Amino acid sequence: MGLNTSVATLILSCANQKGLVAKISQFIFLRGGDIIDLDEHVDNEEQMFFIRIEWDMKDYPSSSKNFEAEFKILADEIDADWEIKYNHNKSKLAIFVSRYDHCLQEILWRHSNGELNTDIKLILSNHDKLKRLAERYEIPFYHFPVTQENKFEQEKKELELLEQNQIDTIVLARYMQILSPGFVQKYPNGIINIHHSFLPAFIGADPYAQAYQRGVKLIGATSHYVTEQLDEGPIIEQDVIRITHKDSHADLIRKGRDLERLVLARALMLHVNNRVLKYGKKTIIFE
Amino acid sequence: MGLNTSVATLILSCANQKGLVAKISQFIFLRGGDIIDLDEHVDNEEQMFFIRIEWDMKDYPSSSKNFEAEFKILADEIDADWEIKYNHNKSKLAIFVSRYDHCLQEILWRHSNGELNTDIKLILSNHDKLKRLAERYEIPFYHFPVTQENKFEQEKKELELLEQNQIDTIVLARYMQILSPGFVQKYPNGIINIHHSFLPAFIGADPYAQAYQRGVKLIGATSHYVTEQLDEGPIIEQDVIRITHKDSHADLIRKGRDLERLVLARALMLHVNNRVLKYGKKTIIFE
Amino acid sequence: MGLNTSVATLILSCANQKGLVAKISQFIFLRGGDIIDLDEHVDNEEQMFFIRIEWDMKDYPSSSKNFEAEFKILADEIDADWEIKYNHNKSKLAIFVSRYDHCLQEILWRHSNGELNTDIKLILSNHDKLKRLAERYEIPFYHFPVTQENKFEQEKKELELLEQNQIDTIVLARYMQILSPGFVQKYPNGIINIHHSFLPAFIGADPYAQAYQRGVKLIGATSHYVTEQLDEGPIIEQDVIRITHKDSHADLIRKGRDLERLVLARALMLHVNNRVLKYGKKTIIFE
Amino acid sequence: MGLNTSVATLILSCANQKGLVAKISQFIFLRGGDIIDLDEHVDNEEQMFFIRIEWDMKDYPSSSKNFEAEFKILADEIDADWEIKYNHNKSKLAIFVSRYDHCLQEILWRHSNGELNTDIKLILSNHDKLKRLAERYEIPFYHFPVTQENKFEQEKKELELLEQNQIDTIVLARYMQILSPGFVQKYPNGIINIHHSFLPAFIGADPYAQAYQRGVKLIGATSHYVTEQLDEGPIIEQDVIRITHKDSHADLIRKGRDLERLVLARALMLHVNNRVLKYGKKTIIFE
Repeated sequence: MGLNTSVATLILSCANQKGLVAKISQFIFLRGGDIIDLDEHVDNEEQMFFIRIEWDMKDYPSSSKNFEAEFKILADEIDADWEIKYNHNKSKLAIFVSRYDHCLQEILWRHSNGELNTDIKLILSNHDKLKRLAERYEIPFYHFPVTQENKFEQEKKELELLEQNQIDTIVLARYMQILSPGFVQKYPNGIINIHHSFLPAFIGADPYAQAYQRGVKLIGATSHYVTEQLDEGPIIEQDVIRITHKDSHADLIRKGRDLERLVLARALMLHVNNRVLKYGKKTIIFE
Repeated sequence: MGLNTSVATLILSCANQKGLVAKISQFIFLRGGDIIDLDEHVDNEEQMFFIRIEWDMKDYPSSSKNFEAEFKILADEIDADWEIKYNHNKSKLAIFVSRYDHCLQEILWRHSNGELNTDIKLILSNHDKLKRLAERYEIPFYHFPVTQENKFEQEKKELELLEQNQIDTIVLARYMQILSPGFVQKYPNGIINIHHSFLPAFIGADPYAQAYQRGVKLIGATSHYVTEQLDEGPIIEQDVIRITHKDSHADLIRKGRDLERLVLARALMLHVNNRVLKYGKKTIIFE
Repeated sequence: MGLNTSVATLILSCANQKGLVAKISQFIFLRGGDIIDLDEHVDNEEQMFFIRIEWDMKDYPSSSKNFEAEFKILADEIDADWEIKYNHNKSKLAIFVSRYDHCLQEILWRHSNGELNTDIKLILSNHDKLKRLAERYEIPFYHFPVTQENKFEQEKKELELLEQNQIDTIVLARYMQILSPGFVQKYPNGIINIHHSFLPAFIGADPYAQAYQRGVKLIGATSHYVTEQLDEGPIIEQDVIRITHKDSHADLIRKGRDLERLVLARALMLHVNNRVLKYGKKTIIFE
Repeated sequence: MGLNTSVATLILSCANQKGLVAKISQFIFLRGGDIIDLDEHVDNEEQMFFIRIEWDMKDYPSSSKNFEAEFKILADEIDADWEIKYNHNKSKLAIFVSRYDHCLQEILWRHSNGELNTDIKLILSNHDKLKRLAERYEIPFYHFPVTQENKFEQEKKELELLEQNQIDTIVLARYMQILSPGFVQKYPNGIINIHHSFLPAFIGADPYAQAYQRGVKLIGATSHYVTEQLDEGPIIEQDVIRITHKDSHADLIRKGRDLERLVLARALMLHVNNRVLKYGKKTIIFE
């Protein structure tokens, strides 16, 4: 999965029809694209067609603008939802944090390691505790203290900052604040959260305390897109680890950190590598 | 974990006090017991003491009755909940089934293989579909068709049958019926259920349909003791497996079968090997 | 993954060339095939093209013979290795066993459950211990006692029996005998073995004893195609489970049984659902 | 597992004898110790007794020197190997690294987070690439460039540095150099390595290339004590993750990093929390 900058990726869904793969692959072939990876699936129950195609455009003579304009004609014919992304156009990321460093640390370390094909433009927090970590990795850090009184006002300023930086993806790396519906609506496919439980179990506050009380034998973490309904957005990635009766509430928090950072990092990699297709309240993950 | 018939197991819990391990291990030593395995833990938050001791009684001269009478004196001093079980006294099992064979098949196969130190005395069902499977393994099969009208009456007859067979443990191997509170109260520590979700997610009917709708990335199974609150009893064992968008509802049912039978079998093995201590709404598992 | 009998599956590999997906999908479309699932991948290092396509032929007017004859022309042009299988032509299976019942039990139970789209034509063993299990599932059982002296002779008779039954796939479900090179050569892609270790660790005899001696923290199982080199054929599926110092050699055997039967069953399902492409000493698994 | 500084831990092994638990727990009780956690096991095959006891000494009036002198008398009677460690005496750690940062980063981050009850005294490397990372966490960094010619001389200087810092535990966090037997002998229980395979598979150089060639379906990592035999020391912890045919050699390296750092961190936590007992070529892990 090394990132070749001449690579483009199409993600598309539509009602199932005969000949779709032939049509789309022919379209790419005729424009000089060399298909590297194609994953297609028809959901029999819903009769929906889902496809992800990754191709190399290195011999492609004209601009991607033309390509998309021409593809739009095809897509309109088959009444498809679609998006084409280019490896050379990195997504622009803002990371929202609070006081916990594990998820931020994980993302910054992976990014510095070349694992995340994205531009981390800024880190934003309602506390200033992680400022130093941001500085180590030379990412601008913005401090927006939020209170019940100034929330609306602060969100407005945050949105301005995001717009100035042309942010397309926001990662809530244990942000611990609930964004207002108006904020969420501005980024309908672009806010990724990590919840520290195996959703839909333990929705809401302090899931580790809930898990400890219930006596579950595994704890989980869930990364999902944020929608206006708390903890109910489309799930991108989940995982669990085993716990025992010897684990205190504090142990669950400690063990859970390892899960949270890995699950969030995997979800973010799937998102920036264009491997996630949102479909209703669910996601299709092309792995 | 091979089963030596001269082995006894104590499971005990009480408020934490100094010197408990010394007292109890001394007690066993003085009566000729040779401790094979001891697992003790103090819960710091609750200041509770939990212990499981397994010892070989082969040189122990007198009867287990005496041993228990003497141990009762010690246990009363420290105000403990306790139970001693002997490998030569196998637990007596009844398996309740409906129409699904996977859990029953798994238990009968493991039993025939020598993995389950228990006497399977009978299989009971509201359908007669699994009669032949019971016959293959030469276990008596009882057919109690249950309707809304005759439920109370049938449960009464079932309880009589269980009593005649001195049943101490009931396994609901996908029984698909809700036992009445009166029935459950007769076996406060002795009814083990398998629920086909990662509880507390997807309580109630058709958890695979719920999982499919929610778009989770893992499905789970949970084995727990049955209490009067549906799906809320102390959890013994849980596990999960990964699913993808290619899995239909039918695929979840198929993949889930593998989980259900393994999770139920593991929970049952923990129970019959005296490795489960119920404590409030939770279990301590001594592995 | 329910099996629709009008479905066909192509598995194909060749040197990478531009336009392959377009060519092949167009070919299927023009003959009325409706592509349900397509998974394509180009190995960048080897510059090899691998594809699996599953399509519904329900509206396809002519015989599959014609289809294949026409496809051969295309395949020759691109110099491909390929195979088309049809759900209505079930693979014909022989299961070779010795004295352990767990793998056989698992396969027969899954088959009876409708999970395995295959005809189990016969069970063959050098012992008669599992005859009764074969009879329960009404599968013919053949007893071929093998000694060092009669091995060659017995294998000859076995091959005759396999030929009479048009067997295409042999499953060694803990067969415990090494097949002679001449036998193996008759089924170059058709013998599936289960080895009770995480290969290439613990090749050869009694891998659990080797694992116990080495003090590993996980034990594994590996299902692979049989080649003339012992335990070195292309791997189809592997998995592991955790063990502890409390596990004796006998415990490893017991715990390993659960792994062996699941890993073998998963490998067999991948094989009969045409999801395995052998490529050199490796496999491509289309999941 | 929060670390209470008044806690002591005994790890002991000896030939099995009756009354050992009673004797040892009585000894601790009489000196005012309050047992928090006790895990005992008898290996039936070897007839060996293994125990780990953790107790709170907060009411213990006299010095630990006295305690150990007295315990020595008991231990000599039963001919035991034993060690008592005190949470207030942290182990003193040196981390050896080369050019890869992932394992070092993980250990330093966990340490800064309070998860590792150890003093990281120094980082030592044959390259200077990770100097900046060491500085960020304010740990002294020593650069010892090693060549075939100066290896013996450099190791001598390294040993002097370790002695000056009273190092008891060395972590080879992807050090990429083989220590000479003389060096290893100085730290018979104190050098922890991470090998990037599921040992004993893929011993030696570039295990990911070996795994890629062999076509395994899982890759692993193993943390073990270093002995004079390369990659053959007692295993502390192992784990695996799933890979597919889509993963290139570079992908294995990337995915393997996540395994390596977690497996090494878990092994190190077990070691510094006195949960590892070396026994012959194996370890007993008290979890």
